[in-house]
Amino acid sequence: MKLYAVIMAGGVGSRFWPRSKKKTPKQLLKIFGENTMIQDTVNRLDGIVEKENIYIITNKVQKAGILTQLPHLPLNNIVEEPFGRNTAACIGLASVLIQHKDPDAVTLVLPADHIIKGEKEFHDTLLKAAEFADKEKGLVTIGIPPARPETGYGYIQIDEKSDFDHVFKVLTFAEKPNYATAVRFLESGDFFWNSGMFIWRADVIMEEIKTYMPELYEGMMVVKDAIGKDGFQEVLTNVYGQLKKISIDYGIMEKSKKVYLIKGNFGWSDVGSWEAVYELSEKDEDGNAKIGNIYTDMVTDSYIYSPKKFTAVIGLDNLIVIDNDDALLICKRDKAQDVKKIIDYLKINKLTEYM
Amino acid sequence: MKLYAVIMAGGVGSRFWPRSKKKTPKQLLKIFGENTMIQDTVNRLDGIVEKENIYIITNKVQKAGILTQLPHLPLNNIVEEPFGRNTAACIGLASVLIQHKDPDAVTLVLPADHIIKGEKEFHDTLLKAAEFADKEKGLVTIGIPPARPETGYGYIQIDEKSDFDHVFKVLTFAEKPNYATAVRFLESGDFFWNSGMFIWRADVIMEEIKTYMPELYEGMMVVKDAIGKDGFQEVLTNVYGQLKKISIDYGIMEKSKKVYLIKGNFGWSDVGSWEAVYELSEKDEDGNAKIGNIYTDMVTDSYIYSPKKFTAVIGLDNLIVIDNDDALLICKRDKAQDVKKIIDYLKINKLTEYM
Repeated sequence: MKLYAVIMAGGVGSRFWPRSKKKTPKQLLKIFGENTMIQDTVNRLDGIVEKENIYIITNKVQKAGILTQLPHLPLNNIVEEPFGRNTAACIGLASVLIQHKDPDAVTLVLPADHIIKGEKEFHDTLLKAAEFADKEKGLVTIGIPPARPETGYGYIQIDEKSDFDHVFKVLTFAEKPNYATAVRFLESGDFFWNSGMFIWRADVIMEEIKTYMPELYEGMMVVKDAIGKDGFQEVLTNVYGQLKKISIDYGIMEKSKKVYLIKGNFGWSDVGSWEAVYELSEKDEDGNAKIGNIYTDMVTDSYIYSPKKFTAVIGLDNLIVIDNDDALLICKRDKAQDVKKIIDYLKINKLTEYM
Repeated sequence: MKLYAVIMAGGVGSRFWPRSKKKTPKQLLKIFGENTMIQDTVNRLDGIVEKENIYIITNKVQKAGILTQLPHLPLNNIVEEPFGRNTAACIGLASVLIQHKDPDAVTLVLPADHIIKGEKEFHDTLLKAAEFADKEKGLVTIGIPPARPETGYGYIQIDEKSDFDHVFKVLTFAEKPNYATAVRFLESGDFFWNSGMFIWRADVIMEEIKTYMPELYEGMMVVKDAIGKDGFQEVLTNVYGQLKKISIDYGIMEKSKKVYLIKGNFGWSDVGSWEAVYELSEKDEDGNAKIGNIYTDMVTDSYIYSPKKFTAVIGLDNLIVIDNDDALLICKRDKAQDVKKIIDYLKINKLTEYM
């Protein structure tokens, strides 16, 4: 069994404004430590996936940044989608490319911008899932045991009785719940956070796409015929032009009869907002995470990022401050989700230079 | 009667960091509208003091800025103190310079960085005070009828019965009071805010200095002999080297028997902090004063100054934000007095480039 990885790196990360911009979305930023998130995502596969088997699916504006950050990956493995068509198309494209190279490939599908703590547990989970996916021809998702009644994640319910050596049959996918529902999910014990990480054989996911998303399948067959030929990118553009924006969850996972879940017993976060960054950061005794030359007086439980400018904060708590070259964000922590509204404002007011 | 003005412009304004720096203290900043505070202070004398009779007492680091901002004043009227020695020395120096030019001069002594609303009332007050000071040889202070139990100002108590056509004999000077005392002052009706503005004949204040501060007087006589001669600045430096730092309030006003008060029935503020700037600024319907390209969402009662950088603030109230080229301040409004502690921090940590 040979493992391949597909790293999905097309997201814009508008909730990370003003650090994330079109050219520098979240996955290309150093948010924790010395590496960018996509570098961490690739490094985290050391020992289980060969570099030449790691594929990055991205877009035109981010490609240059990715090539710079990941110089050790083969150039051909950095694949540029002509337009974003959500995860189903992205996965279809990656799967035909990988199948072309290895018809028996087992692929790990991973977002580029999540944080994981506990590398050994992560590897063990991936390897166990890959073995199951290869043998049983199933689509395996990684479900994270919920730590709190989180309303920002989707959930997956399993049939606890269907235990195939710690891999479980999935009963339902649930959208982001309200708080009361999230509490119920947490208490039930059979709901897990949908991590957006998948493990399957490339041929199996393509079979499922053929069944549930025949248009995507047909498009991808056209793409497959063009692999390695002149005009590949042109064919891809034509095919993508016909595709609808559909997520793999909606298009396949919620319909397929072959969906399984493996519990991910490692630390995980999709780092969905500055609030999540605050929570995942190391803090000082006042509960502050400070990056830069920062003076604080009567300040607690705040995330202050200002690497280029001496910054003084006085008499505030639960604050997020992000000072970038051309823009400044000051936000109450519990309003971190509202940062994405700034992007709409910038669009409407034609201030695209700040996006 | 010829009027002269002495504008005291030596202050550093550490509570206005990061806009005020050593070279650009509060009086040299555009805080309200298109003019700097010292330009407003000079312009406010139009019609009652001739330009050639306006003297600015400042220091080495601020002199260039003042020359640039006040090109219409005679060069010799911008006087550089070798070191700051508080207001008594500043006033002694200005008085001998003015006496040398006009032994009968009546001088208005004014801080460079106060805000006044109601120019006609201001002029009327100054002219009435000048007439009284000239005729009665008194030292006249301007007292502002208190609008609230302010603990940030000194107070002056008058003898209401001693009414010399709306100029009153002063009973006592009171330091900044605590809140309970400030309430009592407000209710008493005979306490007024000490505006730091004085009107007197130059010869009268020099006589009082001779009586109550003989060392300062002797020093100033040495300075007087050197006026117009080579080596004046050297003599000044030697004399200033011997002087103690004493305010005119402590050195003269609290001791002299000739102290009077005229009520200033115009809008006045010493603009002592960013909080005062907020209060004096025009606000939008959310109670915000915004300077720059500022996005606000769920933000009220805040002062946001960020002229060079697109700035977004979300979910906060009663905030002060000052974004300057090399430093950023974010402060709760009721903590505006604590901004000056940043200056101590910068000194201790040898971050003088930010001062």
